[in-house]
Amino acid sequence: MPVYRAPLDDFRFLVEEFLDLDQAADLPSLTDCSADDIRAILREGARLAETVLQPLNAVGDEQGVRLDDDGRATLPEGFAEAYQTYCEAGWNGLTADVDYGGQGLPVFLGLCLSEMLNAANASFAAYPGLTHGAVEVIERHGSDEQKQRYLPPMIAGRWTGTMNLTEPQCGTDLGLIRTRAEPATDGSYRISGTKIWISAGEHDLADNIVHLVLARTPDAPAGTRGISLFIVPKFLPKDDGNAGERNRVRCAGVDRKMGMKASATCEMQYDNAVGFLVGEENRGLAQMFTMMNAARLVTGIQGLGLASVAAQNAASFARERLQGRSLAGPKYPDRPADPIIVHPDVRYMLLKSRALVEGARALGLYTGLQLEIEHRHPDPERRRQAGHFVALMTPIIKAFFTDMGSEVANLGLQVHGGAGYIHDTGVEQFVRDVRITQIYEGTNGVQALDLVGRKLVADNGDLLKSFFSAVQSFIDSVRGEEGMAEFVDPLEQSVKRLASTSALVYQQMSRDPLEAGAASSDFLRLFALTALAWMWARMAAISQRALDAGSDHQTLHQDKLAVARFYFARMLPETLGLEAKVAAGAQTLMALEDDRV
Amino acid sequence: MPVYRAPLDDFRFLVEEFLDLDQAADLPSLTDCSADDIRAILREGARLAETVLQPLNAVGDEQGVRLDDDGRATLPEGFAEAYQTYCEAGWNGLTADVDYGGQGLPVFLGLCLSEMLNAANASFAAYPGLTHGAVEVIERHGSDEQKQRYLPPMIAGRWTGTMNLTEPQCGTDLGLIRTRAEPATDGSYRISGTKIWISAGEHDLADNIVHLVLARTPDAPAGTRGISLFIVPKFLPKDDGNAGERNRVRCAGVDRKMGMKASATCEMQYDNAVGFLVGEENRGLAQMFTMMNAARLVTGIQGLGLASVAAQNAASFARERLQGRSLAGPKYPDRPADPIIVHPDVRYMLLKSRALVEGARALGLYTGLQLEIEHRHPDPERRRQAGHFVALMTPIIKAFFTDMGSEVANLGLQVHGGAGYIHDTGVEQFVRDVRITQIYEGTNGVQALDLVGRKLVADNGDLLKSFFSAVQSFIDSVRGEEGMAEFVDPLEQSVKRLASTSALVYQQMSRDPLEAGAASSDFLRLFALTALAWMWARMAAISQRALDAGSDHQTLHQDKLAVARFYFARMLPETLGLEAKVAAGAQTLMALEDDRV
Repeated sequence: MPVYRAPLDDFRFLVEEFLDLDQAADLPSLTDCSADDIRAILREGARLAETVLQPLNAVGDEQGVRLDDDGRATLPEGFAEAYQTYCEAGWNGLTADVDYGGQGLPVFLGLCLSEMLNAANASFAAYPGLTHGAVEVIERHGSDEQKQRYLPPMIAGRWTGTMNLTEPQCGTDLGLIRTRAEPATDGSYRISGTKIWISAGEHDLADNIVHLVLARTPDAPAGTRGISLFIVPKFLPKDDGNAGERNRVRCAGVDRKMGMKASATCEMQYDNAVGFLVGEENRGLAQMFTMMNAARLVTGIQGLGLASVAAQNAASFARERLQGRSLAGPKYPDRPADPIIVHPDVRYMLLKSRALVEGARALGLYTGLQLEIEHRHPDPERRRQAGHFVALMTPIIKAFFTDMGSEVANLGLQVHGGAGYIHDTGVEQFVRDVRITQIYEGTNGVQALDLVGRKLVADNGDLLKSFFSAVQSFIDSVRGEEGMAEFVDPLEQSVKRLASTSALVYQQMSRDPLEAGAASSDFLRLFALTALAWMWARMAAISQRALDAGSDHQTLHQDKLAVARFYFARMLPETLGLEAKVAAGAQTLMALEDDRV
Repeated sequence: MPVYRAPLDDFRFLVEEFLDLDQAADLPSLTDCSADDIRAILREGARLAETVLQPLNAVGDEQGVRLDDDGRATLPEGFAEAYQTYCEAGWNGLTADVDYGGQGLPVFLGLCLSEMLNAANASFAAYPGLTHGAVEVIERHGSDEQKQRYLPPMIAGRWTGTMNLTEPQCGTDLGLIRTRAEPATDGSYRISGTKIWISAGEHDLADNIVHLVLARTPDAPAGTRGISLFIVPKFLPKDDGNAGERNRVRCAGVDRKMGMKASATCEMQYDNAVGFLVGEENRGLAQMFTMMNAARLVTGIQGLGLASVAAQNAASFARERLQGRSLAGPKYPDRPADPIIVHPDVRYMLLKSRALVEGARALGLYTGLQLEIEHRHPDPERRRQAGHFVALMTPIIKAFFTDMGSEVANLGLQVHGGAGYIHDTGVEQFVRDVRITQIYEGTNGVQALDLVGRKLVADNGDLLKSFFSAVQSFIDSVRGEEGMAEFVDPLEQSVKRLASTSALVYQQMSRDPLEAGAASSDFLRLFALTALAWMWARMAAISQRALDAGSDHQTLHQDKLAVARFYFARMLPETLGLEAKVAAGAQTLMALEDDRV
């Protein structure tokens, strides 16, 4: 069975050496939080993930979610107790607002925790993940009364949250929503309709479930401009803050899925359920997007977490499994065969996994810091710049990290050979669990279109400029440093390739909007691989300097340099093909009639 | 639920227009078999696959294999009846030797059938697939008496076959085999040991199961040179040809797997079971490789079949699912939204799938014809040349077709969006079923090493030359033809890239054997994409000529040209990156110590 060891050394490296927290020193969330505090928090989070959540991961896959005839869902054995442990230690409010009972710690710490939870037990992690998104929506768009009523129990974890968007006839295209909201005389609404694929829609973890539901009021305009957002609690809150009367919302079914089997994916039926409008009518889509953006980052981190646990189990297996001999002659002659890690092709799979996981982790935390700056920095110009970076990176992190999740989970299975395909080995679960991340919170195709169609052109291209100028200042800062040319030169070429491709795409799509869609997926991957090259060059520079200065973490710094070299030699060249594919444009994609594709 | 429509039009195109059967006119298997015969056979095969096997595919996934306490396995409802239908119509002996009751039809027809069976129900197809491999081993290496005894019931399908290689401590490295074979006084042997992951090891389809088992005799040399091959029937054959006394072999367990749940993957225990030596002692590995090579081709076809059914269901879904509007403005304004097939990125996924499936199908059938020539052509020089081509293509077809199988099955799931992740939609089964094909019959890493380490250097590079000269004569034959430059020019560049990369790899590995492993996977993919470019250029040339001559199949020929253009524009450029990755060599792969990768 798989095990999980949280990457505490890498977290330490990234937080203490890589993130350059000085540039963010004015952040209120950092002033009261020392490096030692952060280490201690992450160590405790690791303990929870490794010893409480990971042992339930296979149990969850095996038992799934049971729904009884009254629409009550029961999660697998141990989940409710684990959730209690998680909440009691205050993890659910780690980064939440102190005014509502949160701990107000920086977002990037929350991302580290989220990676560990997802690596240990992705199904479990879905429940707090959804709650956090719902908290953010209410925080941003709810009335004071709604905040007072819902945020404290949700931040404590006593109540959980959901987002109800999808209906049978509408997934990506929310303009097709049919769920109705009729105004009642007391200012509330009566919600009726069917929502599908609602994660955490029903379970036995918490006292109450706060559904955020998109619906149409009677006179709403057609399409996406006529959608409003409602809070529809499973139990109507009493004035004392506790859950009261049962509302007319019910779970009508729990879907059987490829994976994530302990995450309840529910069909929810609203039958004149009491709902409370959030903000104004017809603003629902924009409000829900608050949640979607956060959810997209967290979905990327879910891909990263599953990649991380898959990669580490593959590496352990490759060190233990004895088959064949090194092509260069027996390397462990005293054993009946060499461990398969001696084979270059096995190493290739492991190094790809490592370069992706550690590169993505760096990019994720870097973006987490920008998010923190965007939300909490006193300087509005710093907030604006950071916001641009986050907006640009959100679709890249969602799509690339989750594609990587599937890629790395599959590489891990492949390293295991036949054993990987056997259910009881436990690594095929990673492949099944991670597969949904490429789809939900906006398919990866939708993310790519968001990048090309929105982010590339937003604010006169300022988002893109914020990226290029950050990379350029890094390049300028290390150019000429001993040993840096091998990283900086190909990074520079790669950035040029991205810049010229961006310009080309911009040109092509201003001529024909279909060119945006034709370029999108390849362009996103080209962008992501270039961003990772920047991360690896930066990690290499930090590691080289640390080694020159007599590093206390010599192994880690040497490894970073070695993996950086691998990345530039064997992964970054993929961008050559991507550049050519984007340049080929839409023509061959659009040539066939719809009924002949 | 998914449906399956066999690609009869594409089969017709490939057999009648593409395969150039004139060059193989001396084949005895072709003289009595007209184009009309072939069409009729494929039509009947399609009916079996579409109406008998496909409806059992989800049932098989749901019910799996049940093993009772006496070690008897029961397949899902309907499997035994379907198998009877399959055998009674003579499908099991389609390409088998007429002397033992087969129909002696050409191998490429068998590949078409195999693709259809695997597309319709891959678990079902495993049972005849294993039997065919076992038949081939006995045909090649068995004594006359063994052939008389085993081949007729196996070719008729009344008995099935298995291959028993793997043991808990040995998968790829068969030198580690421990199963013992003690000579008995009557010339037979007594086999004892445990074999794992034995496909079709136990089931209720047939009267008898003929296990081919690798084991060591008492004085055998260590390693792979001390392995012998034995026939170990579940029931010892009586002199009247029927199954008699129960042998001491028993199924001790059926593995739970990620997919292929109706294919019984068994732990087999041999406890002094009666076994009959095939050929001489210590020749087992070479004999088993007869079976492995055939099995590798068929595994590639399994990947193709699953890709094919996944792709066609994705295309249907994309034509029906209404979400959003075309970026160029509403294309179906009378509907509430456009079908998602209007989106360039959805088309990209579908066209990738189609270009891979149809390109691979062409390469598979072309190789099938060469296999037929290798086995049955009267001219020894033609046989030798064809044999070279088949030997070179076998690892490419096994690895690339199965990688493609996973890629296309995953693209198909992605096109379905959230619905794809729901078990009952049925398309996630394709992803789970196809995943094993990248592993069994030699992992794809092992295939890549076979290509680089063996096939590239075999016979002084003659295998490689056979490929380049075949491509070159195609290029020469169409150069200057109207409309061919757009295909021929990039094909020629791509072939040059492959040639120079081959030379580089050859050079690098003669300096350091680890370079072979470091290059292997990327090199195999570069080779495969180039071979597919050749196939697409050839299909384009045939289609262009047919259109110029007033084709009877105008739609098909126009589509082939369109997909060929897509392939060259948006898929072949991947070779740019692969070339650079191979050129980077082993260094960065081998830098880290084994305990630090």
